[in-house]
Amino acid sequence: MAPSALADIYPIPARHYSKAATIQATVLHGPRDLRLETRSISDPAPNELQIAIKATGVCGSDVSYYKNFRNGDLQAVMPLSLGHESAGIVVAVGEAVTGFQIGERVALEVGVPCDNCRSCQRGRYNLCPGMRFRSSAKSVPHYQGTLQERINHPAKWCHKIPSHVSLESAALLEPLSVAIHATRRASLEQGDTAVVFGAGTVGLLVAAMAKMSGATTVLIADIDSGRVNYALQNGFATKGYIVGARRHLNDTSEKLAVAKEISEDIMHYASPNDPDFEGADITFDCTGKEICMQAGLYATRPGGKLVMVGMGTPIQTLPMSASHLKEIDIIGIFRYANTYPTGIKILSSGVLPSLDNMVTHRFKGLAAAKEAFEVAGKTVDKDGKLVLKVLVES
Amino acid sequence: MAPSALADIYPIPARHYSKAATIQATVLHGPRDLRLETRSISDPAPNELQIAIKATGVCGSDVSYYKNFRNGDLQAVMPLSLGHESAGIVVAVGEAVTGFQIGERVALEVGVPCDNCRSCQRGRYNLCPGMRFRSSAKSVPHYQGTLQERINHPAKWCHKIPSHVSLESAALLEPLSVAIHATRRASLEQGDTAVVFGAGTVGLLVAAMAKMSGATTVLIADIDSGRVNYALQNGFATKGYIVGARRHLNDTSEKLAVAKEISEDIMHYASPNDPDFEGADITFDCTGKEICMQAGLYATRPGGKLVMVGMGTPIQTLPMSASHLKEIDIIGIFRYANTYPTGIKILSSGVLPSLDNMVTHRFKGLAAAKEAFEVAGKTVDKDGKLVLKVLVES
Amino acid sequence: MAPSALADIYPIPARHYSKAATIQATVLHGPRDLRLETRSISDPAPNELQIAIKATGVCGSDVSYYKNFRNGDLQAVMPLSLGHESAGIVVAVGEAVTGFQIGERVALEVGVPCDNCRSCQRGRYNLCPGMRFRSSAKSVPHYQGTLQERINHPAKWCHKIPSHVSLESAALLEPLSVAIHATRRASLEQGDTAVVFGAGTVGLLVAAMAKMSGATTVLIADIDSGRVNYALQNGFATKGYIVGARRHLNDTSEKLAVAKEISEDIMHYASPNDPDFEGADITFDCTGKEICMQAGLYATRPGGKLVMVGMGTPIQTLPMSASHLKEIDIIGIFRYANTYPTGIKILSSGVLPSLDNMVTHRFKGLAAAKEAFEVAGKTVDKDGKLVLKVLVES
Amino acid sequence: MAPSALADIYPIPARHYSKAATIQATVLHGPRDLRLETRSISDPAPNELQIAIKATGVCGSDVSYYKNFRNGDLQAVMPLSLGHESAGIVVAVGEAVTGFQIGERVALEVGVPCDNCRSCQRGRYNLCPGMRFRSSAKSVPHYQGTLQERINHPAKWCHKIPSHVSLESAALLEPLSVAIHATRRASLEQGDTAVVFGAGTVGLLVAAMAKMSGATTVLIADIDSGRVNYALQNGFATKGYIVGARRHLNDTSEKLAVAKEISEDIMHYASPNDPDFEGADITFDCTGKEICMQAGLYATRPGGKLVMVGMGTPIQTLPMSASHLKEIDIIGIFRYANTYPTGIKILSSGVLPSLDNMVTHRFKGLAAAKEAFEVAGKTVDKDGKLVLKVLVES
Repeated sequence: MAPSALADIYPIPARHYSKAATIQATVLHGPRDLRLETRSISDPAPNELQIAIKATGVCGSDVSYYKNFRNGDLQAVMPLSLGHESAGIVVAVGEAVTGFQIGERVALEVGVPCDNCRSCQRGRYNLCPGMRFRSSAKSVPHYQGTLQERINHPAKWCHKIPSHVSLESAALLEPLSVAIHATRRASLEQGDTAVVFGAGTVGLLVAAMAKMSGATTVLIADIDSGRVNYALQNGFATKGYIVGARRHLNDTSEKLAVAKEISEDIMHYASPNDPDFEGADITFDCTGKEICMQAGLYATRPGGKLVMVGMGTPIQTLPMSASHLKEIDIIGIFRYANTYPTGIKILSSGVLPSLDNMVTHRFKGLAAAKEAFEVAGKTVDKDGKLVLKVLVES
Repeated sequence: MAPSALADIYPIPARHYSKAATIQATVLHGPRDLRLETRSISDPAPNELQIAIKATGVCGSDVSYYKNFRNGDLQAVMPLSLGHESAGIVVAVGEAVTGFQIGERVALEVGVPCDNCRSCQRGRYNLCPGMRFRSSAKSVPHYQGTLQERINHPAKWCHKIPSHVSLESAALLEPLSVAIHATRRASLEQGDTAVVFGAGTVGLLVAAMAKMSGATTVLIADIDSGRVNYALQNGFATKGYIVGARRHLNDTSEKLAVAKEISEDIMHYASPNDPDFEGADITFDCTGKEICMQAGLYATRPGGKLVMVGMGTPIQTLPMSASHLKEIDIIGIFRYANTYPTGIKILSSGVLPSLDNMVTHRFKGLAAAKEAFEVAGKTVDKDGKLVLKVLVES
Repeated sequence: MAPSALADIYPIPARHYSKAATIQATVLHGPRDLRLETRSISDPAPNELQIAIKATGVCGSDVSYYKNFRNGDLQAVMPLSLGHESAGIVVAVGEAVTGFQIGERVALEVGVPCDNCRSCQRGRYNLCPGMRFRSSAKSVPHYQGTLQERINHPAKWCHKIPSHVSLESAALLEPLSVAIHATRRASLEQGDTAVVFGAGTVGLLVAAMAKMSGATTVLIADIDSGRVNYALQNGFATKGYIVGARRHLNDTSEKLAVAKEISEDIMHYASPNDPDFEGADITFDCTGKEICMQAGLYATRPGGKLVMVGMGTPIQTLPMSASHLKEIDIIGIFRYANTYPTGIKILSSGVLPSLDNMVTHRFKGLAAAKEAFEVAGKTVDKDGKLVLKVLVES
Repeated sequence: MAPSALADIYPIPARHYSKAATIQATVLHGPRDLRLETRSISDPAPNELQIAIKATGVCGSDVSYYKNFRNGDLQAVMPLSLGHESAGIVVAVGEAVTGFQIGERVALEVGVPCDNCRSCQRGRYNLCPGMRFRSSAKSVPHYQGTLQERINHPAKWCHKIPSHVSLESAALLEPLSVAIHATRRASLEQGDTAVVFGAGTVGLLVAAMAKMSGATTVLIADIDSGRVNYALQNGFATKGYIVGARRHLNDTSEKLAVAKEISEDIMHYASPNDPDFEGADITFDCTGKEICMQAGLYATRPGGKLVMVGMGTPIQTLPMSASHLKEIDIIGIFRYANTYPTGIKILSSGVLPSLDNMVTHRFKGLAAAKEAFEVAGKTVDKDGKLVLKVLVES
């Protein structure tokens, strides 16, 4: 199937979609125990849409649940459908919903906040303590993910996408949302130098968003040369840096010494000719690795910002004196809020590098989800081809 | 002379430049009374550089002084050299200056603030009450402009430019600075819709800066179709709107009715298919016309911003209830601060449309300055060619 | 009835309140045609509370409707209950509501936004185009005000108040919200000099909020010496300025000349001994008068802010060059968002001057509402006593 | 000598001060090797004032140099006069200085930045890489501190103080500046709950500044009950928490467990009755202790800020997942910029608790400096009296 073929089939007549009360769903019962099951589905509630899922991207957290039945501190305690990077087509409309019609294509924002707490009221609903997020084990019963044939979802959290944006790109609005949120919180200024650690999906998108937000130098760093090259060849970043392999690092002082080396390389390379260069204006860590946060503190200029995008090592040993003496603000990022409308405008405008092109592997049908998870956990596939975003389509 | 030829002659050996204690200078003595005179020049003071001026752009305020010996409220009271959009080459270095060498190419930031007051200390030196700005009649004795063969200027306010940036572009760092300052103060967000009134030099640059700062729709409006077309064909804006000719408007209510019409056209055109579109996120007025400010208040969404860039009608009658009911912030812009280093990074990165290309008319030698002022005051030249930026080169 | 007596009667047993399906309500049918009527009331909807209204402050917009059956551009088109500054006691709880019990005391936030649009999602729900605001004629059918015996109101917009805060103060959370919102948007800095035009309820509260936000000089200006004295004697402001009576001002230039005089007086008085004083850091106009906006532009320092709090003259003729040359940002204020929880913390902490003390006139029972409106429209009552806030209690 | 007696002796006739070319100075030559020496002093340079030092507060960094001839990573490499919290009287005026007269009282801002770099230009001169700061060993030759009879200092960094502000308070403008800078960067909002770790001079002043910036709950925590009680009794904070003595903590997990306990206590105590309380809006660490930063991350609400004020452990092991999941921004504080004029307005306004009262120990004459350092290194003096700020006066 050609990369953007999903875009062509719009408008899909609604009758092509089953209205049966049963659906197929992929359900994880334990580590690597992924089953294709039949579930019942009700009609959408008054404020809901029923969506036929057409494309779901596989995220690192999905892979983690798939392998371990847990993700970081979160242990699944009941069967769980995975998937939260999704787009689909409206097949039924709840009675109180206005502004949606059967056949319309939508991206799904799968986190449903309480709409009532301080964070929700203030526009930071990603911090809502009552947030229910699909495919996560945090809320019990777990809010089921999108690797199902159809789901009912609040219309408020479904976002219409224009006809020239593919459903594949629309599925990637989820990781793009993380990048929008991270760069928005970073308040980039025109002419900034940004450093991005990690050239996976989120790192690439953060780099691209930094560029489109006015950064004139965007250096992306990764240990994988394939990813760095991908970033440069496809216009995600203006400079790349491949972090060399290191011997095992025994302790904090060795780690910090290596982090310092890396930061010096990066600073030199980011601005080779400027004797007054003091470091990156903004550094994004999209790896969650302690050593990248350490290098980030060294590589950021006085008055700059270090943005923690990647979820990773929960307890980190950091040279906080750098934050102190240089007044570097460390900015935490957790998911996103108010990013989907922005992301749709961005995709629609064509200013970003192609997201369809980021999809390196496509699997057709829910039955192929298991295979998708296996590939998504790797950096290169068995043929040696770079793995970036893996999609399950139906 | 080819557009970017000035860039090629670098490095120019310093010996090519006179070190004589006399220079040629264009001096305005009254309305249209521009004379080419010989002036004496001292060696640079310890903290100064002596710069041979290579390129000076003609600004609207220069034309105003040229025609009337005044600019708005500011009446010239003694002979005045005009010109403040300038770049040149270092020909002598004051004894206390470090980091500069003879032969280096620099852009001149021609406003010299006191470095001591609240505004200077806080990084908003453009608001310094003691600011001395070249070619302006505000400070007495007037601080002489750059349409002279050589000038002495504080090294602190000379900005080195890289070899691949032309001196013409470097001269345009001055209007670009206005655009950087305006868009920086506007705090654009990715995906924003920006409306720009006025497609002269500053309007074009504001539009381009809005685009590079993440705006995905940038609509530029002008009464001159040639300028709007230029903006679209050269990538300064994504949409254009030509304001139609109007009959004489007798009073405020007629004006407001027309402003309302214009705003409705613009809003429709900015977002033709979005029923929820509430107006521009950010509107820039680069005309200084009351009717554009009026239309801007109508065309901006609740919670948006209206940025006053263009200096114009000092007393305006505005529908302030729009600012009230929609919480539109009206942001005043006066020149710029801390923009030159940013502008140099931007020019150097090549992300903007070509500034050399914006120079529609070049005049060689100070003797041609009078002709330059005459052309710069027009929208099209006598051959019907669009007039954007006029440069005097030497 | 003593000022804070309402606080003492808590907890009021719920049985003291009628659960009858009929209530008394004051209803305005035309200019000064206020009637006491019997209305039916349903049980609260699942997400609502039923509130027995105990105290309602009379606002200027209420007086305007009362006198003219309209408020500015808004013409009432059907019978309308007035009142939107209110507190009361929960007498019934909708079945889906959690966290509220009968007998609890609440302040009412009477604007109910759509919870769905861009502004709502971003935390600026005051700008929601679908906002329904009690006692306003904007939405049709009009959303009825609080001068009724009981109302059903969404629990989300009811705010519990602690036992040591009186219901009178709680009613004043509405104008306090305006002051919180205005000072929050002003981003005051410690040590700031603030100027407040207008010493009515909102002006007084803005002054007090500016003081508690770190302003060390708060100068309040009014034409009424009683109000200015009240402000000073009760700790709302640190300095007062009584604007002298003026002859009729014929045209814009006379007006601007007077505005300039006023601004010079104010600046002199705000900082008598500082030769470098350039004007107020923040100026709040709480009058809605054009001449105050004019004086505000003159009296504010370069880089300062002028905050439009008072709703007034919709079309204003202003010296916008001041905003331009001094980069004064003009900030529009429309009601408030996310202020009630803040206001409750502030009242609870006791840092503000007493709000109970601001209630100069209390009327007992809905039947007295007409009299309340008559008094609220005056600056002094028939006994020559200062009129600030007028309350209708039940 | 009575606490504020220094204020009374103004104006001191200039003739009372020596104009001799020799002065007395305390000079540290090694650990605890503090000598009173005679130094020569030149006339002030054109841009300088000569100041007779009247009061100098002893800071923790002074004590550190005094004891170890080093402070953190900074090793003194030549004789060093200590002292940087100072006020004095103008005794000579450089020829290019305007606006100062002999006999005027000034507070000294002892860090002299380059006025030229990016940070200086942007108003963040505290981050200037070329900063020379008196009494610090960072720049070589060391910039000598203020524990000298007289010094020459750039007039730009001398701040006139009004007659009703004592020279003692003026000396304390230095630590107050840290508190102003920290609370300014924290952008407090009215009604905020602030937690302050550390009730030394800086912690007390941060607490007081948080209060005057609109925080309605300010909880201060310290292991020393005397300091906490001082804070409460003198109005610096609204709540106090005494951190209990702990057994030796062996490793990170023990430390984090204790930090968690402390945070829970603090959160409970900060808001005992609010079931929705999610933590402090802003937490300030003024101790530099890792465990306080850990507790701070736990005790701060989602979307809140943790401000690192205290310089301390350079490498810290922190639960960064808290910053991640709760989007807590960690804000580094290094000294201050643009705080002296603000601090003078604050002192002048009388809104803060008395700073004179914070001076618990006064030593008269430079010869007593050694004794001052010994006392300043303790929490209580030999008589069991609380030690807060120690001053050397002359």
